[in-house]
Amino acid sequence: MTRLGLIPWCSHELRLARLICILLVVLVTVPLVAHYYLAVDLDRGTVGGGGKGIANRPGGQWSSGVTACQGRHVEDLCRIRESVSEELLQLEARRQELNGEISRLAGRQDTAQHGVELAKQELQALKSTIVQTERSYRELLAQNQPRLSLPLRLLPEEPGPTMVPPSNPQHCRLHTCFDYSRCPLTSGFPVYLYPRGLVTGTLDLEAWHKAEAIFQSSQHATDDPKVACLYMVFVGMGMSANDLQKRLEALPYWQADGRNHLLMVLSHGAENNNPLLNVSTGRAMLAQSSFDTRQFRPGFDIVLPPLNAALIGPDLHGLPPQVPAKRKFLFSFQGESGLSNSEMGLSLRHYSVQLTSVLRSIVTSGQESVLLELTCSEVDSNALPRQDAFTSAKPSTEWALCGDHTSRLNVLQQSTFSLVIVPHATEGCPTASVALRVLEALEAGAVPVVLGSDARLLPFGEMVHWERAAILLPKARVTELHFVLRSIADTDVLSLRRQGRFIWDSYLGSLGVVVTATLAAMRTRLCLPPPPVQEEPAEQIPHRSVKLSADGVNPEGDASDLELGPQENEPPFPSERYRRNYTVALVEAELLWNAPPGPFLLFPFSPRDPILPSEAQFLGSGAGFRPIAGGSGGTGKEFQEALGGNVPREQFTVVMLTFERDEVLLDSVRRLAGLPYLNRVVIIWNSPRPPPEDLAWPDIGVPVTVVKTKKNSLNNRFLPYDVIETEAILSIDDDAHLRHDEIMFGFRVWRESRDQIVGFPGRFHAWDSTHQAWLYNSNYSCELSMVLTGAAFFHKYYGYLYSYVMPRAIRDLVDEYTNCEDIAMNFLVSHITRKPPIKVTSRWTFRCPGCPQALSHDESHFRERHKCINFFVRVYGYMPLVYTQFRADSVLFKTRLPHDKTKCFKFI
Amino acid sequence: MTRLGLIPWCSHELRLARLICILLVVLVTVPLVAHYYLAVDLDRGTVGGGGKGIANRPGGQWSSGVTACQGRHVEDLCRIRESVSEELLQLEARRQELNGEISRLAGRQDTAQHGVELAKQELQALKSTIVQTERSYRELLAQNQPRLSLPLRLLPEEPGPTMVPPSNPQHCRLHTCFDYSRCPLTSGFPVYLYPRGLVTGTLDLEAWHKAEAIFQSSQHATDDPKVACLYMVFVGMGMSANDLQKRLEALPYWQADGRNHLLMVLSHGAENNNPLLNVSTGRAMLAQSSFDTRQFRPGFDIVLPPLNAALIGPDLHGLPPQVPAKRKFLFSFQGESGLSNSEMGLSLRHYSVQLTSVLRSIVTSGQESVLLELTCSEVDSNALPRQDAFTSAKPSTEWALCGDHTSRLNVLQQSTFSLVIVPHATEGCPTASVALRVLEALEAGAVPVVLGSDARLLPFGEMVHWERAAILLPKARVTELHFVLRSIADTDVLSLRRQGRFIWDSYLGSLGVVVTATLAAMRTRLCLPPPPVQEEPAEQIPHRSVKLSADGVNPEGDASDLELGPQENEPPFPSERYRRNYTVALVEAELLWNAPPGPFLLFPFSPRDPILPSEAQFLGSGAGFRPIAGGSGGTGKEFQEALGGNVPREQFTVVMLTFERDEVLLDSVRRLAGLPYLNRVVIIWNSPRPPPEDLAWPDIGVPVTVVKTKKNSLNNRFLPYDVIETEAILSIDDDAHLRHDEIMFGFRVWRESRDQIVGFPGRFHAWDSTHQAWLYNSNYSCELSMVLTGAAFFHKYYGYLYSYVMPRAIRDLVDEYTNCEDIAMNFLVSHITRKPPIKVTSRWTFRCPGCPQALSHDESHFRERHKCINFFVRVYGYMPLVYTQFRADSVLFKTRLPHDKTKCFKFI
Repeated sequence: MTRLGLIPWCSHELRLARLICILLVVLVTVPLVAHYYLAVDLDRGTVGGGGKGIANRPGGQWSSGVTACQGRHVEDLCRIRESVSEELLQLEARRQELNGEISRLAGRQDTAQHGVELAKQELQALKSTIVQTERSYRELLAQNQPRLSLPLRLLPEEPGPTMVPPSNPQHCRLHTCFDYSRCPLTSGFPVYLYPRGLVTGTLDLEAWHKAEAIFQSSQHATDDPKVACLYMVFVGMGMSANDLQKRLEALPYWQADGRNHLLMVLSHGAENNNPLLNVSTGRAMLAQSSFDTRQFRPGFDIVLPPLNAALIGPDLHGLPPQVPAKRKFLFSFQGESGLSNSEMGLSLRHYSVQLTSVLRSIVTSGQESVLLELTCSEVDSNALPRQDAFTSAKPSTEWALCGDHTSRLNVLQQSTFSLVIVPHATEGCPTASVALRVLEALEAGAVPVVLGSDARLLPFGEMVHWERAAILLPKARVTELHFVLRSIADTDVLSLRRQGRFIWDSYLGSLGVVVTATLAAMRTRLCLPPPPVQEEPAEQIPHRSVKLSADGVNPEGDASDLELGPQENEPPFPSERYRRNYTVALVEAELLWNAPPGPFLLFPFSPRDPILPSEAQFLGSGAGFRPIAGGSGGTGKEFQEALGGNVPREQFTVVMLTFERDEVLLDSVRRLAGLPYLNRVVIIWNSPRPPPEDLAWPDIGVPVTVVKTKKNSLNNRFLPYDVIETEAILSIDDDAHLRHDEIMFGFRVWRESRDQIVGFPGRFHAWDSTHQAWLYNSNYSCELSMVLTGAAFFHKYYGYLYSYVMPRAIRDLVDEYTNCEDIAMNFLVSHITRKPPIKVTSRWTFRCPGCPQALSHDESHFRERHKCINFFVRVYGYMPLVYTQFRADSVLFKTRLPHDKTKCFKFI
Repeated sequence: MTRLGLIPWCSHELRLARLICILLVVLVTVPLVAHYYLAVDLDRGTVGGGGKGIANRPGGQWSSGVTACQGRHVEDLCRIRESVSEELLQLEARRQELNGEISRLAGRQDTAQHGVELAKQELQALKSTIVQTERSYRELLAQNQPRLSLPLRLLPEEPGPTMVPPSNPQHCRLHTCFDYSRCPLTSGFPVYLYPRGLVTGTLDLEAWHKAEAIFQSSQHATDDPKVACLYMVFVGMGMSANDLQKRLEALPYWQADGRNHLLMVLSHGAENNNPLLNVSTGRAMLAQSSFDTRQFRPGFDIVLPPLNAALIGPDLHGLPPQVPAKRKFLFSFQGESGLSNSEMGLSLRHYSVQLTSVLRSIVTSGQESVLLELTCSEVDSNALPRQDAFTSAKPSTEWALCGDHTSRLNVLQQSTFSLVIVPHATEGCPTASVALRVLEALEAGAVPVVLGSDARLLPFGEMVHWERAAILLPKARVTELHFVLRSIADTDVLSLRRQGRFIWDSYLGSLGVVVTATLAAMRTRLCLPPPPVQEEPAEQIPHRSVKLSADGVNPEGDASDLELGPQENEPPFPSERYRRNYTVALVEAELLWNAPPGPFLLFPFSPRDPILPSEAQFLGSGAGFRPIAGGSGGTGKEFQEALGGNVPREQFTVVMLTFERDEVLLDSVRRLAGLPYLNRVVIIWNSPRPPPEDLAWPDIGVPVTVVKTKKNSLNNRFLPYDVIETEAILSIDDDAHLRHDEIMFGFRVWRESRDQIVGFPGRFHAWDSTHQAWLYNSNYSCELSMVLTGAAFFHKYYGYLYSYVMPRAIRDLVDEYTNCEDIAMNFLVSHITRKPPIKVTSRWTFRCPGCPQALSHDESHFRERHKCINFFVRVYGYMPLVYTQFRADSVLFKTRLPHDKTKCFKFI
């Protein structure tokens, strides 16, 4: 209250006070006088009665006083008394009149004060708008400076021989043999695939069609060989080296030396893995699984996995669970050396004997269950090419595979580790036999232990950090093998296994991922960013909006009640997009390759972007930052006025999934009016019936977009619609009642935990020891592992992952049950981050008084959710959810403060 | 209260109730009767008085009733009345007697019930002890199984030629040329350094002594050449190739081919960087900064940084701040091509002209401030060897450095990026000129942009991920250089710069770190774990402890009050140590090299160890896990009975720093009695005066260790004493009053945020825009960035880092001011994690009623803390603290629950 507001009321109150004083004096003195006379007179004839200890009798009545007046000697007094009492009655009436006057005036005062308050708020809001606008203007100016000068694009039409190719193609490296001028950073990496028939030989048709279909579905595929950065050739089998060479040289864009050509050998099983061995390939790069020692050029050629299993396609449901960590066998090895003792040189024999004898000693020591078979009951002649076809020059020391794929997987599924021994002759170059063993181990969840290979010689070893999924040991350490394997803790076994599963899923498991990964590997080398992820185009339903009436159906938005402070009145602005795409390609390529979701997509923003050191916002990088009280910190008003934190200010989008509950929905939308930092409300209209055209949508100051869906699916909740322009999404059910202060606090917490789900209703996964399975649990608990997305913030990044990257089987189950989409999202986020979600505040209310009984009260609903959890665990191979035992509250919640201090929020 | 307890009381109460009823009837009827008679009689002569509306006069006295009795006609009545009143008085007395009886009995009931309660608690505690002991027993059994079979150690005395060395030493790789049998995993990597004089030539004495001293201080140094895994030779200058070769072959352990020898070239400046160029080094490895194209064997030789600056030693205080991100020049380049146009071949000239003309076009486009000098005003002839000495065969295209070290640093400090162009002739092999430019750029905080080098060719490129500290582009992309540099956001510039500073500090900046890093690189290649970090030996002060009296000076420990549930009654047990040392060496080597604190030390445990998926604790890996209610989750009792969470149960150590406040200290220790999960209390006796011998230390059920300190220093608070056997440390001031429930909750939160400081009093860093500097702020705020270590949990890992890894300048300032140790710890943890600390609960109390005025109320104390913050920022080069806007509370704090549910904690 300002001094100015007080003054007119002061003088008024003064007059009033004087009046009340006079009145009080009259009221006190008159009865005293009257009483004196009455008492003097009555004392002579009357005595009070009643006994102490029993009960006080009620005092005499007014009427008994009148009776007393009828006695002698008191007539005068009675008259006096009557007149006095009459006067009293008049005074009483006047008093009441005055009281009425006072309360009327007080009412008017309240109204006036309220008016002043409103005006002040308006002024404050206006001032804040001005400040915000000025800031935005300054920032716009700053951003308006020319940021980028477009790169000088060298046109591919000029084939200038700007570099000196090495005299010997065996010395080819990218900088000497590859023509970068065809692949500018902004080109998007166009790749041209030669049509079938040119060099494919006897390549089986089905494999070719599969591979071509996968290639064509890639965003990199181009039909125009003129603009292509890379020319891809699928090389088939059954041609002589001479024939193959001729065909290569006849390729229309070969340009005499095969520059920018990638020859991808699609071979498998008993076929020759190395048809290009004696072919002069010039400056073309090779992608195949076996190389000869002198053939492989690190950093130039690409090591592929053998396509044996990939051509069949993976059986995702057949993959064994990752837990328990320890399996029946500590490690297993089955194989037969392709070399007889007589064929080996002396030292080689010594070496080989030493190795096998050490392995045998581990078995015979008997401390541990180990499966070691050094001769096969049946050699798998289909898995690898026949020895003679493979290495023509020297005898092979290749270990042949035993049994068939199924029998081998069966053994591997019982092994914690799987031993892979690199043949001595091929140490130092990639071989299909080693890769095949590693592949099968990963498929069965056995951690590969590779003796004698460099991580870089395994498939995609240039990008994939194999040491995080396999144990790589030099052969000389075979004596220490048992010690090393025994020293690896269960936690590490399971992380190695999980990483192995990720690598297998993303780069090795099927023909599709192999082709995609090969393209991605080439792209990564050339420092090109991945293709941008697809936005879901939103088909908007036009609608009519009406102004909210002034008396506000909007209790939650009332600023004077909640003290959310002056709102940021900036008009809606989007989050910055694709700010780091070239940086990601240059700096983080290796990080992308070695963690889900892999390197295949470029996202407009990511929850893991680095943060600035906090002085940067005051020293030159302050655009968008809103430090609290300009950096000096504070509570209450200062805190509410600015977002603070470690990242620039931003807004969020509310996404609501709705299905034919118009009134409930409109109420929920109405409640969002005046919510600070709100960018837009996106209503996902899940019903096939469009909304009634006369529906009056409330105008809440920010755009409300109604999106038509293709089908009624709970998965639509997470679709990354293009109309969602912010990183932060607040997903709320159409019947959820969240207060504005709760939303604001949730938003602030999310801003520092951007990779986690931050929300209100917590749930957890509980172990059912009877059925050895998981249960979904919504009871009160002090430990939680999920936050329902009916009221939660998450990053739009997870919308992309949920819709385009997460295994389809999960989305299908969500559609089948019309349930569990929130569980699926929690699994996804915890799988990516290995972190729990964050539950915020206790105050949230999640009821809808007028709504029909919610879906979730149904018992079958719960049964489905149990099933979902266990199904998702099978898909991921393990339980990704992580427990948390705390909740986030605002810093000064329920803290006793000195009276001159204010809390962060009034109620939470 | 049980039913059994009620029954005897019921019958008693019934009798009582009947008595009271009778009493009431008598009390009510007697006065009524008496009153009737009195009223009839008195009505004739007396009238009640008093007027309504004025005031009731007090009723008449009992005495006035007696007066009335003296009148006529009422003598009989008077008698009756007196007898009645007498009877009443008797009844009143009886009633009081009965009341007394009742309250006595009630008191006895309370006592009995309290006894029952105590007995039940005792029983519960006993049961829980039995359960815990059984669990521990089972786990002990499980752990008792033979875990490891010791590796079969091949003795170095048997020099069996188990491997076939390659015909050409140029093809040497570790598996062909290195004898692993000398380096078992458990050997600890012993390295023998040949004494000076054997091959050091004219190496300057000072450098040699420095290098030797550093080597000898390493834990790997051994004097016994017989057990050494590696033989190290510091190679000096000024010898002919012939002379050098002879000297090498004469080395006592050369074994004809130099196996397991590392020849480290200590050259700098104008000296020949490659004295071994024409020397046949056999199977020895080379560590130097320049290699000839055909000399470098990747994965075998080690690329060193040139020692130009390293020999002088770094000037840490001269390093420029990392902020602002953008400096005066977008990028700078100063250099002069050593090759005249006429010397170049046609295509080379074309290439070189193209490159420089593109660079010039960027400058002339004038959009950006760029410093480009393609001719030097003065060539620095001391920085690099003269061209002729360097590459003898072909003309060099080396870019000469301009000016001197100081003038170059001056320019670099004004550059956001620093361009480094790899000479065409040396593309594909490491060169000192490139490394020197990269080094100087890192020193000045300019992000190096290397055109034409592979990350692996830069110093220690085999382990260091250079792409996270530098921009690596193929030369062909020079046309896109400006575009790329402009597209890099400030956040990325600052992360690149920070990572660059880390690499410079850890591997390049001084002779000491170069020698240490070289040893670490060799160790990493051989899959050997780093040497274990030093534990601080605790010199214990013996003391006398006394049993706590039964009436407990221990209000906080009272379980019935706080409902902490049955305590874990396991005897103190330590956290598992060195469980992952071989795993870390095999799986995480690359992670260790690329984040602080680097790969130099092995820690017994780390806050970043991976966690198990949650089903593993039910399927085979459950040892130590304590799931809540066996996995089904719950609140109240179930929650309090088990730790739950994502990691096995564990204990924590309380560490208290104290200085001559015996009584305050003993009170604090006493309050810890009965605290669950407490492993030990460590009192750091910071006073030079030992504690009085007659001091009676309370026996609180766990060991209390009093440790003598070498000097009175606040840094002692974080010393990693060997008596601290748990990962979790609760550091509390000797006068801090923490309740047991607060400690329990803090411990649970820490268990899921093990890499953060989790504690009670929050503080923050505030920006002082007037002085453009930081202020320490302890006001109430809704945003915090520090948690004081006077009441906080942290991982013992940070104790090692604080004491042995953090820059000494910080510890020195703490000693100088006797202040700021808590700020230093917050800086350290946020620097390592880039995360804020976590503040827990609102209830904590941090006062000490009887204590002398605390240090922190002094104004100079605050001034020092401001100074500390700004000093620490200078040391780290940036402000590592990160803000947080929330606090952790227990999940159901202040939540309204159905009456049959219980909260996680009663009060918090």
